Amino acid sequence: MTRADGRRPDQLRPVTITRNWLAHAEGSVLVEFGATKVLCAATVETGVPRWRKGSGLGWVTAEYAMLPRSTNTRSDRESVRGRIGGRTHEISRLIGRSLRACVDYKALGENSILLDCDVLQADGGTRTAAITGAYVALADAVAWMRKRRMCPGDPLVNSVAAVSVGVIGTEPLLDLCYTEDVKAETDMNVVMTGGGDFVEVQGTAEGTPFDRALLNGLLDLATAGCAELTRLQAETLA
Amino acid sequence: MTRADGRRPDQLRPVTITRNWLAHAEGSVLVEFGATKVLCAATVETGVPRWRKGSGLGWVTAEYAMLPRSTNTRSDRESVRGRIGGRTHEISRLIGRSLRACVDYKALGENSILLDCDVLQADGGTRTAAITGAYVALADAVAWMRKRRMCPGDPLVNSVAAVSVGVIGTEPLLDLCYTEDVKAETDMNVVMTGGGDFVEVQGTAEGTPFDRALLNGLLDLATAGCAELTRLQAETLA
Amino acid sequence: MTRADGRRPDQLRPVTITRNWLAHAEGSVLVEFGATKVLCAATVETGVPRWRKGSGLGWVTAEYAMLPRSTNTRSDRESVRGRIGGRTHEISRLIGRSLRACVDYKALGENSILLDCDVLQADGGTRTAAITGAYVALADAVAWMRKRRMCPGDPLVNSVAAVSVGVIGTEPLLDLCYTEDVKAETDMNVVMTGGGDFVEVQGTAEGTPFDRALLNGLLDLATAGCAELTRLQAETLA
Amino acid sequence: MTRADGRRPDQLRPVTITRNWLAHAEGSVLVEFGATKVLCAATVETGVPRWRKGSGLGWVTAEYAMLPRSTNTRSDRESVRGRIGGRTHEISRLIGRSLRACVDYKALGENSILLDCDVLQADGGTRTAAITGAYVALADAVAWMRKRRMCPGDPLVNSVAAVSVGVIGTEPLLDLCYTEDVKAETDMNVVMTGGGDFVEVQGTAEGTPFDRALLNGLLDLATAGCAELTRLQAETLA
Amino acid sequence: MTRADGRRPDQLRPVTITRNWLAHAEGSVLVEFGATKVLCAATVETGVPRWRKGSGLGWVTAEYAMLPRSTNTRSDRESVRGRIGGRTHEISRLIGRSLRACVDYKALGENSILLDCDVLQADGGTRTAAITGAYVALADAVAWMRKRRMCPGDPLVNSVAAVSVGVIGTEPLLDLCYTEDVKAETDMNVVMTGGGDFVEVQGTAEGTPFDRALLNGLLDLATAGCAELTRLQAETLA
Amino acid sequence: MTRADGRRPDQLRPVTITRNWLAHAEGSVLVEFGATKVLCAATVETGVPRWRKGSGLGWVTAEYAMLPRSTNTRSDRESVRGRIGGRTHEISRLIGRSLRACVDYKALGENSILLDCDVLQADGGTRTAAITGAYVALADAVAWMRKRRMCPGDPLVNSVAAVSVGVIGTEPLLDLCYTEDVKAETDMNVVMTGGGDFVEVQGTAEGTPFDRALLNGLLDLATAGCAELTRLQAETLA
Repeated sequence: MTRADGRRPDQLRPVTITRNWLAHAEGSVLVEFGATKVLCAATVETGVPRWRKGSGLGWVTAEYAMLPRSTNTRSDRESVRGRIGGRTHEISRLIGRSLRACVDYKALGENSILLDCDVLQADGGTRTAAITGAYVALADAVAWMRKRRMCPGDPLVNSVAAVSVGVIGTEPLLDLCYTEDVKAETDMNVVMTGGGDFVEVQGTAEGTPFDRALLNGLLDLATAGCAELTRLQAETLA
Repeated sequence: MTRADGRRPDQLRPVTITRNWLAHAEGSVLVEFGATKVLCAATVETGVPRWRKGSGLGWVTAEYAMLPRSTNTRSDRESVRGRIGGRTHEISRLIGRSLRACVDYKALGENSILLDCDVLQADGGTRTAAITGAYVALADAVAWMRKRRMCPGDPLVNSVAAVSVGVIGTEPLLDLCYTEDVKAETDMNVVMTGGGDFVEVQGTAEGTPFDRALLNGLLDLATAGCAELTRLQAETLA
Repeated sequence: MTRADGRRPDQLRPVTITRNWLAHAEGSVLVEFGATKVLCAATVETGVPRWRKGSGLGWVTAEYAMLPRSTNTRSDRESVRGRIGGRTHEISRLIGRSLRACVDYKALGENSILLDCDVLQADGGTRTAAITGAYVALADAVAWMRKRRMCPGDPLVNSVAAVSVGVIGTEPLLDLCYTEDVKAETDMNVVMTGGGDFVEVQGTAEGTPFDRALLNGLLDLATAGCAELTRLQAETLA
Repeated sequence: MTRADGRRPDQLRPVTITRNWLAHAEGSVLVEFGATKVLCAATVETGVPRWRKGSGLGWVTAEYAMLPRSTNTRSDRESVRGRIGGRTHEISRLIGRSLRACVDYKALGENSILLDCDVLQADGGTRTAAITGAYVALADAVAWMRKRRMCPGDPLVNSVAAVSVGVIGTEPLLDLCYTEDVKAETDMNVVMTGGGDFVEVQGTAEGTPFDRALLNGLLDLATAGCAELTRLQAETLA
Repeated sequence: MTRADGRRPDQLRPVTITRNWLAHAEGSVLVEFGATKVLCAATVETGVPRWRKGSGLGWVTAEYAMLPRSTNTRSDRESVRGRIGGRTHEISRLIGRSLRACVDYKALGENSILLDCDVLQADGGTRTAAITGAYVALADAVAWMRKRRMCPGDPLVNSVAAVSVGVIGTEPLLDLCYTEDVKAETDMNVVMTGGGDFVEVQGTAEGTPFDRALLNGLLDLATAGCAELTRLQAETLA
Repeated sequence: MTRADGRRPDQLRPVTITRNWLAHAEGSVLVEFGATKVLCAATVETGVPRWRKGSGLGWVTAEYAMLPRSTNTRSDRESVRGRIGGRTHEISRLIGRSLRACVDYKALGENSILLDCDVLQADGGTRTAAITGAYVALADAVAWMRKRRMCPGDPLVNSVAAVSVGVIGTEPLLDLCYTEDVKAETDMNVVMTGGGDFVEVQGTAEGTPFDRALLNGLLDLATAGCAELTRLQAETLA
């Protein structure tokens, strides 16, 4: 099988990570996985949410959204509808959890970092691009804080990157674009640390349920893909 | 390591599935995983959502909610807050996807089945109990429809069951109760078909990220647990 | 006239009040009036709403809701609609007012008791069943508080019970089930203290307006019905 | 006991009903019970709500609201809060039910009349003033329709008026103003037809529960008060 | 061209400003521009919004709304729709800004004045009538405060009045009524101080864009109109 | 007076208009006025809103929003708050009105064009940049439609551009950046056609009210600024 854009099954789309895309944010990145473009902005705030006050611990959270015309067919704004949809909630929570995996709350002190991930253009894999880019924005925000001696220690204890994998027909593929995603029997998002451990594994059979062998094939692809993204993140931050 | 309630690492809590718990619903089940109690009601409606009209295909969806005092500390009603939280959205979507994995939309015809899963009492594993119970309510609703010759064919092509697994310290455990869940480094929900294939795998490192070996250990436990739940479902429906 | 279920005009449906139905709540009751089943949970909280702080007085309030498939036809969740309907508001307020009639706020101290009344199955009279059951849950919650010496005195100075009465054709009937309720010309809910005084009288002519004689007949029936429910509450709490 | 404004216990406040207060509405009334001022506007619409289409029957409904500074202390707008409160819902429903008691839906044909009751100034008894005034606005709207031959018959088969009664100390009083209302042990709103039958009786013990004798005293006062209001309505419409 | 009501192009409709229309508010005015009637109520509150606390400065704000049947065709209540529309937001903000132009925040001290402008009847020019009337209510509220020595100085340093102007065909007209407003090519609202300076100029080409000469013609008309309204305000307050 | 960035009083910031910034939209532009960056996407939809169906006329509308970290201090998402703020409403309406000024609805046929203007980075003048950019996106969308012969005629009968002007101290300045905007006594937004007529004039005295001479000075500056922007638009579209 050849893929629509000629990639090998285990090949990522061209990935670019542009730092300091915004003037105001403490860290900001425009991350591109092929035609997917996500703008990630890290905001540093002193203080933590109410339920965490006085703990001495920091907090990291995220919000994900898509611009109405980031997709082929325009979708209504969630602000206009007056409520956030389930998918948006789900992805915001995933990004937040993923980034918290690389943070030492104690070293962060009672400060918060909020990561806004806004999809400017969507072509599959927006949540994994968002995590991969948000890590770099987070690293820049942490550096900004450390320069100002805002943290008691170094809060960044790990790195995270994420990639989607899926099964078309019976073949596992890395980093699906939108037209592939639509045809996939199984769709899986994998978030891994720079050290190669799993932070999150979310696999869903959209079509035929998958067996253990196929699951193993997907995990192999994702592991290699995340390693490559980790390398790109390090290169960008160097 | 012994578990708080004396179970072996690979042992489910006592599971009971009581059919026809409600008088009005086309299918209804009170499912209990230990102290976790979820009321699952299946509602049959002729017709499908607007975006599916004229397709000849049916639809299955789910809504999950917790009674305010199902938990140790009361939580505010989402109706009073005026919005549904991210966790509720996420679980409702998971239950819907899971049950759609055992349904042939064409055989269902342009009919809908809605599964309401209301947690009356929570002690960990509410979403997996909900899926396991909702399958039985769905099967009863399908039988109700077939008796009335509402479907062009047999829409039930599979069964699904679900269980949670987790890591405490470094040990994988099956079917965590609430006090275990709170201490877990990793928490994973697995949905499987009666035939032993995966429908959904959602693993999250709440603490230390997990490696491939630990992931394999969790998947082994979940596979055995789902098989046992599948047996119980079949027994109940017999 | 004979009633659908063979009852006499002045006869209650079988009433059962099961205490401690939930593990977590400070008081909890499953109350059944025939096929109507309401789960009442009492939550004790230290402190009172803002407008009452520093007064030395406690507070009691209630929230009523129906599970979507408690009724013959499913109704949408109020959390999904994003707003609470007028009927729900009205009944929550009625239950709260009714229970406050048996409480000495000073003896309660600056503590709150919130009664959640969730209708699991509806067959008429859900609000009156809720009040009757919630009183027992309240009594258990008060006992729980007194064991922990949380209250300056005994806050429970009375008991309350409630029943519906109605007119079908021209005949007054006690404790209408759903099919009777639908046919009733007049529908009245009466809340009384254990001592036989009125806390709330709400009569509505759904069809033909009613005269004073008919009103008197309804009040006679309700007085006897509440006395019987008061006896059952006392028996349950003994 | 003398009342603050020197009235006898069985005396109404000065009541004025000004028709055609608004230029646009099909019927409109400014009703005053002492310092309480409610603007009632009747809107005629061809057609009925969806659930009633094709029935050949009309519909009458009502919406009640208070201007933010109608009261001594300003209250937030419900539009700004984004939700309608329980009290507003409750009163809107009461007004709608009350006015439907004087309408023959068949004679109205598939038309709707909506009564907007906006409290410009509040001094107790706003809901009963609203019902009393809205009846006159409804009568004018019906006359407007009949002149245009919009109705198959005469939809106005009765009249309704409403008044509040209450107990201060142990004395029943008619038509409470705000300062009396605050002190009342029991508060009752009574809606009656022009023929002297009850449409709605809503009595609440805010303080001491009330016995049957007191209830009878309140009903006597309300019956006389509604008769007087009925006379005023007829005079105004003559 | 003659206008529908026989006015000259540069003539206001009959304007009346009735003070103390409400019993409870610190300042209240019923302002009428022809058939347009707006009830303006000023509420004095000690304290300021959170973002202004500790500044020593006061605050003035406004809320505008229309009664549902103030217009020829009934519009839904914004409280029922659960959200405030863009037009309402826009006008509330305009009124607040306009009135703040005549207030010295320092002399007001940390107090707030909120102006509620509720349109009872609409016939064009509701926002300009609201500003003109609200100024008088504000002046009364300030006098009320000064009598109670609540302000460190005299917060009223100017007066404001507002009027609409528009172009029908190619002719500029003052103070458009609704039927004129509908036909206007350009619609402009102008807010001016008593001294003849501009506070706000909002001109919109609903039809043909307008040139500088036409704009000048409109500004001339508005200047004369505001001067006349300023005179009426002063007369009313004298 | 010299401006912070060394510009003359009558000088625009560097303006760039990049077409086809997005892959999916029928027209899309990234417009930059100095550091202000707005992404404008035009979406073509067949059909018109309900109230316009069957008229044979098209419709053009707009939605404006700011990314949370487009500003120096992060602002909450309106989707999270569950409601759109007054400022957003106001600007969306302004953009829509402005663009409708260059469209012939009849030539558009029953089609709609929706312009999404999302501020990626804000440094003053976001609404005027949005209008200026949206015009170009609209022109591209119209060209896209005409190529597909979707319109009965040429719907683009004019062009529009917009610029802000303001007074600092007593000097009128063109195209204020954020730090200037904050200090301005008066702030005015002017929308003009390519032919030099006014579509919208919105001037507000934030500080000292302004006189006619100052107003004239502002209009002169805006006229020249809009002419320059019109030239840039034409150049870009050439």
